[in-house]
Amino acid sequence: MVKLDMPFPNPPFWDLLGIEVTEMNDGRATLTMPFDRKITQPYGIVHGGALFTLADSAAAVALVSLVDLHEKRFLTVEMKINYLAPVSGGIIEARARVIKLGRTISPVDVEVFAGEILVAKAISTYIILKNDKKS
Amino acid sequence: MVKLDMPFPNPPFWDLLGIEVTEMNDGRATLTMPFDRKITQPYGIVHGGALFTLADSAAAVALVSLVDLHEKRFLTVEMKINYLAPVSGGIIEARARVIKLGRTISPVDVEVFAGEILVAKAISTYIILKNDKKS
Amino acid sequence: MVKLDMPFPNPPFWDLLGIEVTEMNDGRATLTMPFDRKITQPYGIVHGGALFTLADSAAAVALVSLVDLHEKRFLTVEMKINYLAPVSGGIIEARARVIKLGRTISPVDVEVFAGEILVAKAISTYIILKNDKKS
Amino acid sequence: MVKLDMPFPNPPFWDLLGIEVTEMNDGRATLTMPFDRKITQPYGIVHGGALFTLADSAAAVALVSLVDLHEKRFLTVEMKINYLAPVSGGIIEARARVIKLGRTISPVDVEVFAGEILVAKAISTYIILKNDKKS
Repeated sequence: MVKLDMPFPNPPFWDLLGIEVTEMNDGRATLTMPFDRKITQPYGIVHGGALFTLADSAAAVALVSLVDLHEKRFLTVEMKINYLAPVSGGIIEARARVIKLGRTISPVDVEVFAGEILVAKAISTYIILKNDKKS
Repeated sequence: MVKLDMPFPNPPFWDLLGIEVTEMNDGRATLTMPFDRKITQPYGIVHGGALFTLADSAAAVALVSLVDLHEKRFLTVEMKINYLAPVSGGIIEARARVIKLGRTISPVDVEVFAGEILVAKAISTYIILKNDKKS
Repeated sequence: MVKLDMPFPNPPFWDLLGIEVTEMNDGRATLTMPFDRKITQPYGIVHGGALFTLADSAAAVALVSLVDLHEKRFLTVEMKINYLAPVSGGIIEARARVIKLGRTISPVDVEVFAGEILVAKAISTYIILKNDKKS
Repeated sequence: MVKLDMPFPNPPFWDLLGIEVTEMNDGRATLTMPFDRKITQPYGIVHGGALFTLADSAAAVALVSLVDLHEKRFLTVEMKINYLAPVSGGIIEARARVIKLGRTISPVDVEVFAGEILVAKAISTYIILKNDKKS
């Protein structure tokens, strides 16, 4: 897998967690995050907040593949995640897919895998706004 | 505000984000996280995943105040968060309250503030399990 | 409690379920629905979909108290509900409160009670649109 | 499409809304509900609560295909639904799929269609309990 360059500065929080984009195309994106002790909770498994961050980031990149960031920007309205299995090692991968690109509202589906195991599933909602402040 | 000692080892992910417990009592908890550039996204505001992590952690500590961790452990089943305002500085505070302590399932309500402003609202669900594996 | 008149035609689905508005003021609303065998599921308790309908309706009425329906309309973007206790009789009451009235997006908090017992808790998101089609 | 017989008495709320099971097999289920004025809201489209009821019911039937109802029963812990398009006619169809059959917790994915159009997407969580009260 090759790290892709994004049309925006690398988010500091991605660097902190080791998040990288490996695929971005036509409303879909795949991002990875390596297991590291620093993202764990007391039971030694990956903190749910780190999995959520990877999933939310993947959803955002899936939208980046469809939205012109010179003209528009988007923000997470809400996100809901179900945890299915604990993660205690390896490379974690989130695969996002824009369910529907609306004019204002876009829901995104995300699945998070550790190897072949589905470890989390999320649905998020984004609002797309005109980039007034940049003009 | 004083940092409280917890009945479990300090989670590495809390250390990474600067999360501290300032209140924990009778199904309620308050946790704080300082704004830092390292937890931001491309627009310079705090990444939604960092706010989610603070909220989820607060919910867990609220449960810790009610559950005997020698006998039981709990895991996040799912969590949903609504973002209400961007955060670009200061101390962020999450206030969690156990809605109902069930035998198996407990929902928790969390509000996240930046100063006086409500910046996120979440509801999460936890499953409480007997601590078989530790015995 | 007195049934209030609403600034819109009575929704057929409310009539089917016996839903009435008993309070609507300043971003808050209370709606009631009587227990009836016709809204139950196989275990004899109220179907989760009927509780959801009451909660979603209460959220909408709370917004009606703040939004001029001559100029704007709104739609439910998404809603999440946690069920806390079964309901097998009496009058069910949903109390909604607009968390934040945004220009475009408004989240609403809803609690559903059977007598004194909190039986469900929900957060929903609404989009507010200009009423172009009516002009 | 043929209406299937279910291993439980027909839920009264299904009869009220015209809900029928057309497929149930191996963790999947399809249920239908006809458009009818009685399930609409003020704008003349199907009330979100009716779509939610269909989706929740489909999720439950998908679980019925995997769980022995003589020994166990299940309850909806929570459900979250995103609305994607209004529905103003025709037959509405919900397709549910059990994401993971856990010992205690099972999440289910549901998509709701009106014709070919995806009109809603939901994730729900169920708790599976031993049927003590029946023994």
